[in-house]
Amino acid sequence: MRLAVAREIEVGERRVALIPDTVARLVKKGIEVWVEAGAGESSFFTDTDYETAGAKIVTDTDALWHEADVLLKVGIPKEREDGRLEVDLLREGAVLISFLNPLGEPAIAQRLAQRQVTALSMEMIPRTTRAQSMDALSSQASIAGYKAVLIAAAALPKYFPMLTTAAGTIAPAKVFIMGAGVAGLQAIATARRLGAVVEAFDIRPAVKEEVQSLGAKFVEVQLNEDTVADGGYAKEVSEAAKQRTQEVVAEHIKQSDVVITTAQVPGKKAPILVTEEMVAQMKPGSVVVDIAAEQGGNCACTKPGKDVQYNGVTIIGPINLPSSMPVHASQLYAKNLFSLVQLLIKDSNLDVNFADDIVSAACITHAGEIRNQRVKEALATLSSATAG
Amino acid sequence: MRLAVAREIEVGERRVALIPDTVARLVKKGIEVWVEAGAGESSFFTDTDYETAGAKIVTDTDALWHEADVLLKVGIPKEREDGRLEVDLLREGAVLISFLNPLGEPAIAQRLAQRQVTALSMEMIPRTTRAQSMDALSSQASIAGYKAVLIAAAALPKYFPMLTTAAGTIAPAKVFIMGAGVAGLQAIATARRLGAVVEAFDIRPAVKEEVQSLGAKFVEVQLNEDTVADGGYAKEVSEAAKQRTQEVVAEHIKQSDVVITTAQVPGKKAPILVTEEMVAQMKPGSVVVDIAAEQGGNCACTKPGKDVQYNGVTIIGPINLPSSMPVHASQLYAKNLFSLVQLLIKDSNLDVNFADDIVSAACITHAGEIRNQRVKEALATLSSATAG
Repeated sequence: MRLAVAREIEVGERRVALIPDTVARLVKKGIEVWVEAGAGESSFFTDTDYETAGAKIVTDTDALWHEADVLLKVGIPKEREDGRLEVDLLREGAVLISFLNPLGEPAIAQRLAQRQVTALSMEMIPRTTRAQSMDALSSQASIAGYKAVLIAAAALPKYFPMLTTAAGTIAPAKVFIMGAGVAGLQAIATARRLGAVVEAFDIRPAVKEEVQSLGAKFVEVQLNEDTVADGGYAKEVSEAAKQRTQEVVAEHIKQSDVVITTAQVPGKKAPILVTEEMVAQMKPGSVVVDIAAEQGGNCACTKPGKDVQYNGVTIIGPINLPSSMPVHASQLYAKNLFSLVQLLIKDSNLDVNFADDIVSAACITHAGEIRNQRVKEALATLSSATAG
Repeated sequence: MRLAVAREIEVGERRVALIPDTVARLVKKGIEVWVEAGAGESSFFTDTDYETAGAKIVTDTDALWHEADVLLKVGIPKEREDGRLEVDLLREGAVLISFLNPLGEPAIAQRLAQRQVTALSMEMIPRTTRAQSMDALSSQASIAGYKAVLIAAAALPKYFPMLTTAAGTIAPAKVFIMGAGVAGLQAIATARRLGAVVEAFDIRPAVKEEVQSLGAKFVEVQLNEDTVADGGYAKEVSEAAKQRTQEVVAEHIKQSDVVITTAQVPGKKAPILVTEEMVAQMKPGSVVVDIAAEQGGNCACTKPGKDVQYNGVTIIGPINLPSSMPVHASQLYAKNLFSLVQLLIKDSNLDVNFADDIVSAACITHAGEIRNQRVKEALATLSSATAG
């Protein structure tokens, strides 16, 4: 079985699918590993590091893609500089494992099915206990939450911690985290580490205990509807619930030095949690970091990839935060892939076993078919929108 | 007595000498306070905030400087856009209190003496217990140390804290702080808060206990000479001592993910602690933040105000870090000034009393004379250098 790691061609993507350490583990299991020349460069792993780990360094990109039994990537396959699609470089029957965003960009799934590729989407790994070690959405979201707080602290014109100095006492910064998923929880932990007073809000009351255990205050909003979707993610709620939520959070936003928003709905535009009016109520010098910027943002003032000034408030909409910490982001992602790849191996040979619930859930295309119902629906919506 | 706060004209200077809260305290003591329009803008204090605190907002800059009994500033007086020197706007007998860098730029002292200005330099506040509340070098250096760590953490491609995740354990970052003065100690505290493993080095063995009490390991170097100058600052050491020091620190630098350098000698070029060879030995992806960048830098690769890439190592040379946190930097500086101004008041009138050791130490010019011996020497050196 031959496993290949492609160099990421997306601008700004600094991660790599496998790090030398995981390559060595795979090689030890009797797997042949090819790594595209320069694949680890942006995350500070050299070709020599990979070679030492037992990989073959491949400079011929087309050969790497075409001769792989399993191709590993970080980001969605793209169009290359020469106009060819990366997806089209794979041979029929090959396995592709990567973030594929099949609910947000379902067209890629259609293409993968047409190409007879067996595609496993890292976004579709179920949130079960057995799949935890493969949960790349979580490993990467945690980095986003950590990094968002560092960005906020660096932008804030104040200290985060309370300090007692010869020139008087400095009050701690007030940080409000919106959304207590993996990113939100790591943001809470990081803001607490830096000494801020932290409040957190989530429409799922079940996260209250976790929030409190990290030393943050949980802001409660009473809603009369179900707020948790399958898989433990937050669900999109009704207009009335949004209204009620907005009233409660507006008060907390107003009193905060830093607001970090992390609310994302898989495959959909991010919900607006911080309106322009709420930003206008914030103290000059306050900072909003919007982790959902790439999905349109949780703040009405967010411009993805930009710092926006609004009435003295700085709204930061970072893009691809995990990529800004490429060593650990790649290390964790590689470990996620390693765990998943182990499910696909039997006696050092490739064996895609759909009886395994994780393989079945993650696999979006196989033998010319789209296997996932939600991806089919997303594709149907896309087709009707294009037709309309 | 009329006290005036000038708007800073230096590009990138976001601090202001007094914040509304300190204005209110001074007004309560029967002091008239003038604040130049827009003086607090970059630190998020509005003219209305100052007016509410009891200040008079003055739009006529010349009048503000000329009619002040005591003029308060943050940065060294500069040449204005119209070509006039700010110093020349003061009337004879006026008091100027500001950072004046008289040892580094002694020409300003000469001009102030010629203008018959009584100038108090915040750098010359003695390091005595009674003067602690006026120690602006310390209040601002602490911000620099805090911010340097945030910048390093944001630039590092790794997490700072140790994390135990479903995808394996993340090892904590190794941070090496060079110089355990106020900036270094705050850097240690901040890096520890973020969960890094911290080592610190200082040529003064007396700081060992303080370093250890913050949870860092103290790196010891045995030197056979005195390393502490008057006032508790680090002293410039011999070439032999530098050599021995370099050998020891080189080993620690090599093993660190982050190096933060904070060694400054008042009025002199910063000593090189991290040579090009040492940077070449560092791991790709490592980060150096050089707080001494403005004084030429402690790292041979530092370019003030720039991020330099050298063999995969990022060397960051930030300029005026306290100004990047203008709310708290101004708050602390204002408190420092407030404490000092109190020594200059008797029955709501100005009374510069040289019998007070703090006033005497801080005052560098009075009645046409340069009062400070070290400033005189710096000026003599400057004159001979210019003549040579």
